[in-house]
Amino acid sequence: MAVDETVRQHKYLLDESQMPTAWYNIIPDLPEPPPPPLHPGTHEPVGPEDLMPLFPMALIMQEVSQDRYIEIPGAVQDIYRQWRPSPLFRAHRLEKLLDTPARIYYKYEGVSPAGSHKPNTSVPQAYYNAVEGIRKLTTETGAGQWGTALAFACALFGLECEVWQVGASYDAKPYRRLMIEAFGGEVHRSPSDLTNAGRMLGANPANQSGSLGIAISEAVEAAVADPTVRYALGSVLNHVLLHQTIIGEEALKQMAMAGDTPSLIVGCTGGGSNFAGLSFPFLREKLAGNINPRILAAEPASCPSLTRGVYAYDFGDTAGMTPLMKMHTLGHDFVPDPIHAGGLRYHGMAPLISHIYELGLMDAEAVPQTECFSAAVKFARTEGIVPAPEPTHAIALAVREALKAKETGEETVILTALCGHGHFDLPAYDAYLNGRMEDEAVSDERFASALSTIPVM
Amino acid sequence: MAVDETVRQHKYLLDESQMPTAWYNIIPDLPEPPPPPLHPGTHEPVGPEDLMPLFPMALIMQEVSQDRYIEIPGAVQDIYRQWRPSPLFRAHRLEKLLDTPARIYYKYEGVSPAGSHKPNTSVPQAYYNAVEGIRKLTTETGAGQWGTALAFACALFGLECEVWQVGASYDAKPYRRLMIEAFGGEVHRSPSDLTNAGRMLGANPANQSGSLGIAISEAVEAAVADPTVRYALGSVLNHVLLHQTIIGEEALKQMAMAGDTPSLIVGCTGGGSNFAGLSFPFLREKLAGNINPRILAAEPASCPSLTRGVYAYDFGDTAGMTPLMKMHTLGHDFVPDPIHAGGLRYHGMAPLISHIYELGLMDAEAVPQTECFSAAVKFARTEGIVPAPEPTHAIALAVREALKAKETGEETVILTALCGHGHFDLPAYDAYLNGRMEDEAVSDERFASALSTIPVM
Repeated sequence: MAVDETVRQHKYLLDESQMPTAWYNIIPDLPEPPPPPLHPGTHEPVGPEDLMPLFPMALIMQEVSQDRYIEIPGAVQDIYRQWRPSPLFRAHRLEKLLDTPARIYYKYEGVSPAGSHKPNTSVPQAYYNAVEGIRKLTTETGAGQWGTALAFACALFGLECEVWQVGASYDAKPYRRLMIEAFGGEVHRSPSDLTNAGRMLGANPANQSGSLGIAISEAVEAAVADPTVRYALGSVLNHVLLHQTIIGEEALKQMAMAGDTPSLIVGCTGGGSNFAGLSFPFLREKLAGNINPRILAAEPASCPSLTRGVYAYDFGDTAGMTPLMKMHTLGHDFVPDPIHAGGLRYHGMAPLISHIYELGLMDAEAVPQTECFSAAVKFARTEGIVPAPEPTHAIALAVREALKAKETGEETVILTALCGHGHFDLPAYDAYLNGRMEDEAVSDERFASALSTIPVM
Repeated sequence: MAVDETVRQHKYLLDESQMPTAWYNIIPDLPEPPPPPLHPGTHEPVGPEDLMPLFPMALIMQEVSQDRYIEIPGAVQDIYRQWRPSPLFRAHRLEKLLDTPARIYYKYEGVSPAGSHKPNTSVPQAYYNAVEGIRKLTTETGAGQWGTALAFACALFGLECEVWQVGASYDAKPYRRLMIEAFGGEVHRSPSDLTNAGRMLGANPANQSGSLGIAISEAVEAAVADPTVRYALGSVLNHVLLHQTIIGEEALKQMAMAGDTPSLIVGCTGGGSNFAGLSFPFLREKLAGNINPRILAAEPASCPSLTRGVYAYDFGDTAGMTPLMKMHTLGHDFVPDPIHAGGLRYHGMAPLISHIYELGLMDAEAVPQTECFSAAVKFARTEGIVPAPEPTHAIALAVREALKAKETGEETVILTALCGHGHFDLPAYDAYLNGRMEDEAVSDERFASALSTIPVM
């Protein structure tokens, strides 16, 4: 057999000394500011004091900051440097399989302790809570990536960590719970009998498998009941997107190392933090006229908030307890089908991303899950990384574009966000490879019904 | 809470261009050559022709090579560079937890596609078979790390891959099987009804849970039955240890980057390939008088071939079908207790490591598994990596030595091999954290009984 003996550059690494030392806040660079969140009762803009029972003041100030750059504290930098800067890879072998003139790069966050991009924000969140004397953080988790990331961060700052995990995931994905426990976190199956919300909602047999909404209620209740405890959220909010921008700041430097400029940047969107993390620093350069990439969100066909939702004030949770946020939403009681990409099953989109989408600065496309896993298997068998179900959406759009480039002959330069590995999600691959995966079809009536629940302002 | 804002250097990375381009063969540097393997029938040294039905000629030649360096083919370098050079880390946070003056470094192989050091040899093995026109490779796997690594390598060279997995592991660790299938490999539960050996041995109900010995018999039978098929082994043999030396060659450069010289090098030993990979290049420098580290093998208390075995000619498999190898052995029908470190449950030791141990160039200590997991949990909660059960043995000895250094005040410099992550082994952590893990005690009678089966030469 003829074997190609070519040796190529696959990885673009930055030395620890080249790691960015500030996060990037895109808000002051936008042509207009995003609409503020509103109090659910008064419909007046939410003030810092409304958030104090939930978050430390440093994070509340970041949520509303107008500073373009916010310095990363030394203690956070020190922890980041265990796995950051993360690698940028050139997907030579995938390109060869696709026989495309496109050049495909991927920024890989699966090298983190939790196997995803989530520690980029769990570490600073734990840090700021520790500095303000907090004893314990509570949170919810679905599949478990965010719970793992927060447990890791809490271990490093001597904080306790209590996680309410969606019952169905608790039962089906035991390895994620064990990973949280290995890091010293405590995990409860939600609904639990430890909170009023859990006892009340759990009394209804229909709720026994849990939901993210119920788990949030339990974690929030546990936090506000004790002044030494705070709550932590893993996506959606401005300060979470802010912390993730270190991904894009690094990728800018690494694309320069590679001597290439992306013509397309694609990331998956659930709450939006991974997508924002990679794309916002490139969007800054685009707004400054330095580069002109198309910026593309990949969302699941079963939960397409950008492409099928409306831009309106809606609740962040199903029970309607949170502030009202102006965002692309499918309606706060839309329950997505149980696709394998659990991290993308959210009815809304980060308000900041929604605002940028409305400004026409980015695009979005929805992808059905079998197309995602078809692309992911090609990726795994060439690049050697089995992606988490969430980033398979970005990979699927990268493959679509690479095949278009094959038709046109265009040397498209694609940069994609590979936000985590799929080591704990292998049953999804099993379902795909053995013909047991279906594309969920959401009826127009079901979308219309959920949209009708959005509050009229 | 007071938070330490110190920013430290955690990672020592080499650029792809600094990756070693040759493997190191220690045999010509040893004061005397290792004893040859013997034919089980004639007791004469085994010749290349005896091995041709199993391995391609290039690997047979490497098995007996007297060259100090063997060039890594371009196609293999190209694949290595997806994840190599692998990172060397300084364990600052673990050191702080232990309050030790020791400096602890770990070379991490969990960044590979299979999550362990195994692809360092699966890739060249698949390459040499592809070059010689082979269509398919067969192998056995226990917990599944080796099967995963070989499936990945076969995918890249267009080879089919057929894996017989020990029945008990097939049932208990489904994620590893799914990972092999994601890479395109085919997995059979062993004993299977696809081979004479499987049908014959499987007829005995006592064999239904399988063993590595049975799985080897099946994979070997399938390979020798078809001239377009060969067999691949993941440890023990000289050519496997050779391929792993890239670990130590990189670590030599990285310790120089760190400006430090190890006084202790510690790695876990099952078949011995990970330990040899890290230590042989340092042993070369020790033999040349350039450095003088203590080189220490960490073996499980339940399967201590170096510290409790004898140095004798014995079979490599339980059924007694392989050549006789001079090695430290507990006896070829010694069946180790079912500890979580499945990769260390081998009755013998690589002949080359056994020879070096007899020459007095290295030491060995046995560690009970609860001490291993106690050290591993400390490691996970500070360094953020959950180690596979196998390298917890090396971490446990590193912790022992770091605590000794705390007593003496000595600035011991410890270099340890972290050969893989434990993402597929989390039930072991669950057992430890919830008090369900026991230290197996092997009776003197059981050791003596197994030793009595070693053939008299």
